[in-house]
Amino acid sequence: MATTRFHDESADVDGLYADMAAADLQPLWTQSGLLPSAPNGLTPHIWRWKTLRDLAERSGDLVGIDRGGDRRVISLSHPDLGGQPFATHTLWGAVQFLRGGELAPAHRHTPAALRFVLEGSGVWTLVDGDPLHMAPGDLVLTPSWTWHEHHNPGTEPMIWFDGLDVPLVRNLDAVFFEPGGEELSPYEPVFASRSESLYGGTGLLPASEERAISRDPAPGRPSRLLAYRWAATDATLSRLIETTGRRAASVRYSDPATGRDIMPTLRAELHRVLAGHRTPTTRTAGSGIWVVYRGSGATVVDGRRFRWTPGDMLVTPSWAAVDHEATDDADLFLLSDGPVLEALGLARTRELPRQDVREDVA
Amino acid sequence: MATTRFHDESADVDGLYADMAAADLQPLWTQSGLLPSAPNGLTPHIWRWKTLRDLAERSGDLVGIDRGGDRRVISLSHPDLGGQPFATHTLWGAVQFLRGGELAPAHRHTPAALRFVLEGSGVWTLVDGDPLHMAPGDLVLTPSWTWHEHHNPGTEPMIWFDGLDVPLVRNLDAVFFEPGGEELSPYEPVFASRSESLYGGTGLLPASEERAISRDPAPGRPSRLLAYRWAATDATLSRLIETTGRRAASVRYSDPATGRDIMPTLRAELHRVLAGHRTPTTRTAGSGIWVVYRGSGATVVDGRRFRWTPGDMLVTPSWAAVDHEATDDADLFLLSDGPVLEALGLARTRELPRQDVREDVA
Amino acid sequence: MATTRFHDESADVDGLYADMAAADLQPLWTQSGLLPSAPNGLTPHIWRWKTLRDLAERSGDLVGIDRGGDRRVISLSHPDLGGQPFATHTLWGAVQFLRGGELAPAHRHTPAALRFVLEGSGVWTLVDGDPLHMAPGDLVLTPSWTWHEHHNPGTEPMIWFDGLDVPLVRNLDAVFFEPGGEELSPYEPVFASRSESLYGGTGLLPASEERAISRDPAPGRPSRLLAYRWAATDATLSRLIETTGRRAASVRYSDPATGRDIMPTLRAELHRVLAGHRTPTTRTAGSGIWVVYRGSGATVVDGRRFRWTPGDMLVTPSWAAVDHEATDDADLFLLSDGPVLEALGLARTRELPRQDVREDVA
Amino acid sequence: MATTRFHDESADVDGLYADMAAADLQPLWTQSGLLPSAPNGLTPHIWRWKTLRDLAERSGDLVGIDRGGDRRVISLSHPDLGGQPFATHTLWGAVQFLRGGELAPAHRHTPAALRFVLEGSGVWTLVDGDPLHMAPGDLVLTPSWTWHEHHNPGTEPMIWFDGLDVPLVRNLDAVFFEPGGEELSPYEPVFASRSESLYGGTGLLPASEERAISRDPAPGRPSRLLAYRWAATDATLSRLIETTGRRAASVRYSDPATGRDIMPTLRAELHRVLAGHRTPTTRTAGSGIWVVYRGSGATVVDGRRFRWTPGDMLVTPSWAAVDHEATDDADLFLLSDGPVLEALGLARTRELPRQDVREDVA
Repeated sequence: MATTRFHDESADVDGLYADMAAADLQPLWTQSGLLPSAPNGLTPHIWRWKTLRDLAERSGDLVGIDRGGDRRVISLSHPDLGGQPFATHTLWGAVQFLRGGELAPAHRHTPAALRFVLEGSGVWTLVDGDPLHMAPGDLVLTPSWTWHEHHNPGTEPMIWFDGLDVPLVRNLDAVFFEPGGEELSPYEPVFASRSESLYGGTGLLPASEERAISRDPAPGRPSRLLAYRWAATDATLSRLIETTGRRAASVRYSDPATGRDIMPTLRAELHRVLAGHRTPTTRTAGSGIWVVYRGSGATVVDGRRFRWTPGDMLVTPSWAAVDHEATDDADLFLLSDGPVLEALGLARTRELPRQDVREDVA
Repeated sequence: MATTRFHDESADVDGLYADMAAADLQPLWTQSGLLPSAPNGLTPHIWRWKTLRDLAERSGDLVGIDRGGDRRVISLSHPDLGGQPFATHTLWGAVQFLRGGELAPAHRHTPAALRFVLEGSGVWTLVDGDPLHMAPGDLVLTPSWTWHEHHNPGTEPMIWFDGLDVPLVRNLDAVFFEPGGEELSPYEPVFASRSESLYGGTGLLPASEERAISRDPAPGRPSRLLAYRWAATDATLSRLIETTGRRAASVRYSDPATGRDIMPTLRAELHRVLAGHRTPTTRTAGSGIWVVYRGSGATVVDGRRFRWTPGDMLVTPSWAAVDHEATDDADLFLLSDGPVLEALGLARTRELPRQDVREDVA
Repeated sequence: MATTRFHDESADVDGLYADMAAADLQPLWTQSGLLPSAPNGLTPHIWRWKTLRDLAERSGDLVGIDRGGDRRVISLSHPDLGGQPFATHTLWGAVQFLRGGELAPAHRHTPAALRFVLEGSGVWTLVDGDPLHMAPGDLVLTPSWTWHEHHNPGTEPMIWFDGLDVPLVRNLDAVFFEPGGEELSPYEPVFASRSESLYGGTGLLPASEERAISRDPAPGRPSRLLAYRWAATDATLSRLIETTGRRAASVRYSDPATGRDIMPTLRAELHRVLAGHRTPTTRTAGSGIWVVYRGSGATVVDGRRFRWTPGDMLVTPSWAAVDHEATDDADLFLLSDGPVLEALGLARTRELPRQDVREDVA
Repeated sequence: MATTRFHDESADVDGLYADMAAADLQPLWTQSGLLPSAPNGLTPHIWRWKTLRDLAERSGDLVGIDRGGDRRVISLSHPDLGGQPFATHTLWGAVQFLRGGELAPAHRHTPAALRFVLEGSGVWTLVDGDPLHMAPGDLVLTPSWTWHEHHNPGTEPMIWFDGLDVPLVRNLDAVFFEPGGEELSPYEPVFASRSESLYGGTGLLPASEERAISRDPAPGRPSRLLAYRWAATDATLSRLIETTGRRAASVRYSDPATGRDIMPTLRAELHRVLAGHRTPTTRTAGSGIWVVYRGSGATVVDGRRFRWTPGDMLVTPSWAAVDHEATDDADLFLLSDGPVLEALGLARTRELPRQDVREDVA
C-alpha cells in the first residue's frame, strides 16, 4: 500500500487550500507544532515580591474599590501568553491588596478561588455568609459559585495571593458571573467559621449533617472545610519531618470529608524544604505557581536556576524538570491544576536523575 | 389460574417431607418466621459497669495472660443468642482488663477491632509496629489483619471497651488468625503515633505518601488514622453544639483521607446530649452497642426505658425505636454495623413521633 | 513483663465464671475455635438433579400455591448448618417448581433473588410490573424490595434454580417482607422487558434516563438490567474462548450501567470448561453454589472429587481448594457472595499448585 | 467602609500601569469581559457535507499520506477561533479521507480520538494491534496514548468524522506524541475485534480479565469496548422509542465495564428524532458538534434555525438554547465535552420554554 506523500505543487493544490479556507476548513497536513512530542507551551517565569508589593501598595493609593471593579487585584501575566492576564494556560495568579477600612463587595462566579495570606491580619472573607478570619499563612477558599466578599475592619492593609482557575474555565466556555446586591452583609467577626466548627476535627465528621458522606463519592464537589490555619499547617509539616526523618515534607490541602482536593480544578500544597536540602528532580504534566512563604533558596527548572526569597512567585510549566534547594528552611505554597489532569486521564509524573544547572536567572 | 393451596394430609405428603429431609432439602412452605415483616431477631439488653468492672478486676486477680489466651477479655453475651459470646448478630462487645506491668502479645486476625478507653492511662497498643498511646476517651483502631499487641508499662490497670465485627466475619466464613512470634516488640513510648503524625492534620494529607488518594476511592480499606484523642473529640462536640445551637451533637470517626468509616465493617460515633434534652425517636436497620462514657440519663428502646450511668453498655437491636434523654450532660460512644448495611444496599432509617415509655427496666 | 497465664483451679475461678454467666458475660480465654487460622465453617456438599427434579415434581402434585406460602420452593439445607434451610452461611439455594397454569402471587422482601432457568419455557416473572420472559439458561433478577410474581400461562411446568442472600440478610437482622394485594397484575406477555429495551444495548445507555450515571458510583444499587438471555451468554463465552485460545472462559453478569455485580450481595457467573480441560486450583474467601447447566465432569474440592451431570448443585465452602474438570463441554452457573467480601475488605484469593485427588465422592 | 472607586486620571496612574506592564502584571480592574455573566465565547456554525465531501475527494486526488503527515484530515476551523483548526474551545472535528489501497501509519498521542463512519466500508483501524472493522454508522475509538493505524485494503474510499479533544489537551499543556516505526503491522481482517469479543456481551464481563472491576471506579480510564456497531445502535434506539412511546430517543456510548463515557474527555451520543417531532429546548454548559447521519431537519440555536441533511456538521456553543426538529426520521451523532464539565464541577443544564425562531440561516 502507498504510504508516500506526493505534494503536487500546482495550482490545483493552491486552489484546494484556498477553497478550504473559504469554507472554514484547514488541512491537517500543513500544520506543524499541533501535536508536539511533549508539552512545550510555556517557559518558567518568576515575579519578585518587591515589585508585587510595591505595585500593590501604589494601586492602593491610586485606585479604589467599587461596584465597577470589585477587587484590587494585580494579576501575573505570563509573557508567553500574548498579553492575557494569566499565569499559565489553566491558572490565574495575582496579589490582592485590601487597605484598612476597605470592603470588597459580594459577587460569585463559576471560577473557583483560593487566598493564601502573605501580609496583614484581621480581615474576614464571607463565603455564603460564613465569616472566615484571615491571617498570614492561612489558606481560605471561595469555591465555585459561592457568594464571597472581603472586609478589612482594621487599619492595616492585607496582601494575599489569589489563585483561580479562570483560564481553564474560560477555555471550557463555562464562566458564569453574578454581582451581589448593594447592601452589606452583617457578620460576626469570629475566629472560627461555621465550616471549621463542623469540619475542623481531624477524622471527626458531623454525623447528622454528613450521614451520607461515605456513600457519596461524587466528583465535582469542593471542600466542605473553607479555612486552613497556618499553625496547623506548620505543626503538621514539623511532625512529618520529625516522623519520616526526611529533610523535606509536603501536605496537600484536602476536604476532610472525602480526602479530595480543595476544588475539582485546583490543588494546593505546602512544601517545606530544610536548609541545605535539594529535592529530587521530577517532571509532572500540568502547570504550577509556587509562592514563597518563608525562607530562601532556589528552584531549578529545565536547568535554569531561579533564586527566591519570601513573596516571590514562580511558574513551573507542564512537564518541566523541577527541583528545589533551600538556603534557609523554606516553605513554598503550590497551586496546580493536578486534579484536572488526573480526572481527565492525562496525569503523568517522571523521576529524573539530578539535573545540572546550566544558567542562573538574574 | 390456581392460587389455592391444597395440603394433602396424607401419607404421600409425609413421605415427601421425609424424602426431602433424607436428601438434605427442606420445603419453604412449612417454614415460618423465615421472612418477618421487619427485623425481630433481638431484644435490647443492658450490662452494668459495676458488674463489668468487678468481674474484670477479679479476672485480673485470677487469670493471667499468655500465648494460650493472649487477652483478658470478658465479652457481652446477649441472652437471645443462645450462649454465643456476641452482643448482636454482627457485633462483638467486651471489656478488656490489662494490669500494670502486663503485656498482651502480638497476633492478627481478619476481624477488625477498636478500643475505647474507659479507665486508666499510659498503655501503648502497637499496630504493625506503630505505638499508640491510650488514655480515657481515646479511640484506638486495630484494623483487619494488622499485627497488634498491648503494653502496660505502668502500675495501674487499664480497662477499655473492645468492639469487633467477629460475629459478622464468622458468618461470612472469613476468619483468619495468626499468632505472633515469641519475641517482644521494642517500641518508643511516644504520645503521638506515626499514623497521627501523617494523618493528624485536619484536611492536610501527606502529599508524598498520598498522591494517589483522590484517585483511589476503593472500598474495603480501613482508616489511615489509628488514634482519635478525647480532647479533640470533646472540643469538636463543643464547637458543634455552640455553632448549631442544638442541645445534642454527634461525630462520626472517619478516615481523614477518604471520609469513610473507620473500618469497612464498623462505624464509631460519639453522641453528646445536654442535660434535660431528649433526642428524636428513630429506627435504623442494623444493630448498635452504646457505651456510656460520661453523664447519666436513659435510653428508650421500643417503649422500654433503660437508665444508665458511666460504663454501662446497651445493645439496641435492628429497627428498634430509639431515643436518649440526658439527666446530666452525657457522652455516649456508639459502635454499629451501619457501613455494612449501607454497602449492601440494606440501610434504612425512619423518623418516628416521640415514643411513649411503657416500662422502666430495672 | 508477665506473659504467663496462671489458671487458678480454685473455687475462686469457678465462682468467677458462674458470676459471669449470671451476668450474660463470657470469658474469651475459655473459648476455643472462635478465631480459626483459616475458614473452616463448612464442608462441600452436592445435591443431585435426579433427586431435586423428582421431589419438585412430587411437590407439584401434592402441594398448591397460595397466600399462605406463595412459592413452591425446595431449599438446599446444608447438613453442617443444623437444620436451617440454607446452602451456606450467606447463600440460599433452591429449586422452584411452577406447574402449567400456576401463578405465584406478588410479594417483596429485602433479600435479593435471582432465577436461573433449568427446565421449561414461557413463564413470565413480573418485577415491579416489568414482565420478564423465562426460558432455559436465562438469568432473571428480582432485586431487593422489588415486587415480583411468577406466571406460567402454558401447560408445561418450569423448574428454576433460586439463589438468594437470605442467610446473610437474616444475620444482619435486615429482613423486611411485605405481601402483595389480592388482585392479579395484568401484563403483556412480551419477549423483551422494559429493562432490556432500556439497558440491553451493549455500551449504549439511554441518555435521558441515565444522564447522571457517570456521576453516581453509589454502592448498594442492584443491576438496572433484569434479564440475561442464554443465547447472549452462550455467544459471549464462545467468543471469549475463540479469542483467548483458552480451554475455559467465564463471564460475570453485571449492571451495564456500572459494571457492578447484579446485586450488592450476590455475584453470578457462568463458567464454561471444554471437554478434557482441568482448570487451575484456587482458594477464595467466600462461599459458592455451582449449578451444572450443561455437560458433565467433576469438581475437586479440598482433594475430594465430586462428579456431576446437568442439574446437580454443589456447594464450595470459603477458602476451599477448588478446580473443575470437564468430561464433555460443560457450563456451570455460579452464585457467590463475592461482592460482600469485597465491599467489606475481606476478599482473598490464592492460586495453588494442582491439587491431588484423594477421595471420590459417590 | 469605602466602596467607591476613584480613578485618578493622573500621570501617577499612567505610570502605575506602565510599571505593571513592564513587570508582566496587569490590573484586573481595567479588564472587561473576563468574567461574563454567562458563556459567550462562540457562535453556532455549520459546515455542509457537499463542501466537506468535495474537498475531501480533491485532497485524495492531490495529497498523499506518509510519515510527514500521516493522515488526510480536513478540520473544522471555527471562524470565531482566529484561524485555529478547532471546532470549539475543547473539541476538534474533521473529516478524514482514506482512498482504496491506502494506509495511514501508526502513531499515538495523548489527545483521544473517535471515528464515526460516514461513507465506505472495509477499512480496519488497528488499536494497540486490535483490528477494528469499519462500516457506516460504526463508532470506533482510539483512546489516549494508544497506537493506531488505518488500513483500507479495498478499492473504495472511506470518509469518517474525526472527533478529538485536541484543543482541550493543548490548553492543558498535556500533548504528547510519538510516531510509530517504519514497518507495517500485520493483522487479521476480522469483523469482530478482541475488544468486542471481550466486552461485547451486554452485561456480561469477562470474569478472569475483570475480576477487579467492581472495586476499581478510578476516573480517567477510557472505554474497554472500542467499537460500537451501527446495527446495535439502530436497534437500541428503535427499542427505546417503542418502549417509551416517545418521538425521540438518545443513547450515550459507554464503557460496558463501568457505564462511564467512552473517554474521560469526550462524550458521544446518538440522537434519533422522528419525522415531525421537535425536541424540548435546553441549555447545557459545554460545547458540542452534531453530525447528521441520516434524515433531514433543522436545529434551532439561540433563535437561529440551521437546516441540515446527511453529513452536515453543526457546532452548538456552550449554554446556547438548542432544539431539533426532524423533517424525516433523523439520526444525529453528537460529540461533546460533557464529561469534562461534570468531572470539574461545572456542569449545568436548564430546560427552557420552546424558543422562537427569529432567523433562518442559509
